[in-house]
Amino acid sequence: VTLLAVLGPDLVASLVPADTPILRADDLGAVRGDGVFETVDVRAGAPWLLDAHLDRMARSAAALDLDLPPRTALEALAGALCAAWPADDEGQLRIVATRGPESGGPPTVYATLKPITDKQRAQRRDGIAVRTLPLGVPAGLRTAEPALLAGAKTLSYAVNMAALREAERRGADDALFVSTDGYVLEGTRANLVMAVDGRFVTPRTDIGILAGTTQADVFRFAEGEGIATSYELVTLADLEAADALWLLSSVRQAAPVRSVNGVTRAMDLAMTERINDFLLSREQ
Amino acid sequence: VTLLAVLGPDLVASLVPADTPILRADDLGAVRGDGVFETVDVRAGAPWLLDAHLDRMARSAAALDLDLPPRTALEALAGALCAAWPADDEGQLRIVATRGPESGGPPTVYATLKPITDKQRAQRRDGIAVRTLPLGVPAGLRTAEPALLAGAKTLSYAVNMAALREAERRGADDALFVSTDGYVLEGTRANLVMAVDGRFVTPRTDIGILAGTTQADVFRFAEGEGIATSYELVTLADLEAADALWLLSSVRQAAPVRSVNGVTRAMDLAMTERINDFLLSREQ
Repeated sequence: VTLLAVLGPDLVASLVPADTPILRADDLGAVRGDGVFETVDVRAGAPWLLDAHLDRMARSAAALDLDLPPRTALEALAGALCAAWPADDEGQLRIVATRGPESGGPPTVYATLKPITDKQRAQRRDGIAVRTLPLGVPAGLRTAEPALLAGAKTLSYAVNMAALREAERRGADDALFVSTDGYVLEGTRANLVMAVDGRFVTPRTDIGILAGTTQADVFRFAEGEGIATSYELVTLADLEAADALWLLSSVRQAAPVRSVNGVTRAMDLAMTERINDFLLSREQ
Repeated sequence: VTLLAVLGPDLVASLVPADTPILRADDLGAVRGDGVFETVDVRAGAPWLLDAHLDRMARSAAALDLDLPPRTALEALAGALCAAWPADDEGQLRIVATRGPESGGPPTVYATLKPITDKQRAQRRDGIAVRTLPLGVPAGLRTAEPALLAGAKTLSYAVNMAALREAERRGADDALFVSTDGYVLEGTRANLVMAVDGRFVTPRTDIGILAGTTQADVFRFAEGEGIATSYELVTLADLEAADALWLLSSVRQAAPVRSVNGVTRAMDLAMTERINDFLLSREQ
């Protein structure tokens, strides 16, 4: 079952059947990928880390020069879905804001809520196979021009989805983008965290990747456990030398990497369980 | 007035009011920019160069591993709109195919038809101001990895639209992307053609840019006029040294460039008129 809520021009959220067509043919979200989104884990009937997600959504919208509705309206939109959702079920909430119809009008704002899939849940436990894929861009130049929207979570994910299909075609579960100058960037919809000599390391965000909400949460876990954390330039050699790897996202949480480019990697399953217990079990 | 036609599961095109919502909240066109499109000039009641556009749409769809409906269905979709359109009015037809709902189902396929704007028409005559903008990618590496979708006309245009806004913010009408290694690529929705010592020159498409249908048509014009044509690597120095510049697209046709980065450029208005007469006046 999937739920859908649409934010009206009066900024009131209305639940409508999930298969109701809600976007016009000229909606700039559809014809230009021109909009922003967030995906949020829902548990115990509430969106997890909603503040961090709405903060990032505001940053993405600012990069696109897109006027979001007031934050309280977005919170109410999420709240309307969660109120109609069985509190015992873990769900994935997607909040979308497009630039609205090309012919004029306010942004199109809506949210959907659907169950976490068995596949997503299994990946937290069984791990994932990853393929590296060249993104064709040098890491250092991606943030130089703001119009390139580096670090903004936009609706223009055609390349991400093509990379995911390419990884699957090669027998993997996800792709990991690498820059032309040899730095590891991010997954198609996830951030990388590595265990290196007892530290947790993730790629620096000034190379144009998305700042991960789950990655930040894992770093909070690490700090609580006395594990040092750092943001670094990560090379392919660093990736190969790391003791353990995870891809992190809000719906998958921490998925241990069991192979890279077909080469088996050691998984730290005890640590994976502790991380996911932390990510999934805390009270808000 | 705008017209909208939707291709049904039976591959029959139906006209519906243009403001009818037709896309579901989870349509992958809207939430992932995952789909392809073409924009086609309509005149004398018929889509101009429809074959070339549907050829390119098929190539784009192949790059995205997206199953398009049969070509006859796309032709009928365009035909249904043109039949309802005043034959004396020049229009712009947009044909869209998305990957369909995330929850499953066939691609979402539709087309819209609306008038050419006065602004678009004026740019053919008065010219446009252009800003160069770094795209942050080296030209030579863009086509190395097919998953990067170089040369495919996808719905993921968020960066193109941001670049257009940035150009407008700086007082220009359009942006012209430049690679990190100094090669001129393409406009946000247009191709560049330069007059150089009596030849017509356009950037090579193996640097990952879109192959232009209007650019190809202008080269046919040139060949008919005995003007030599060539596809080259175009540097910023070449851009500066050229005798005249045009940005070409299906709805704007040939827009002469009247300035680059605030520096006035000579426009060859007599040649512009001959080109646009050729582009706009021929029988199909």
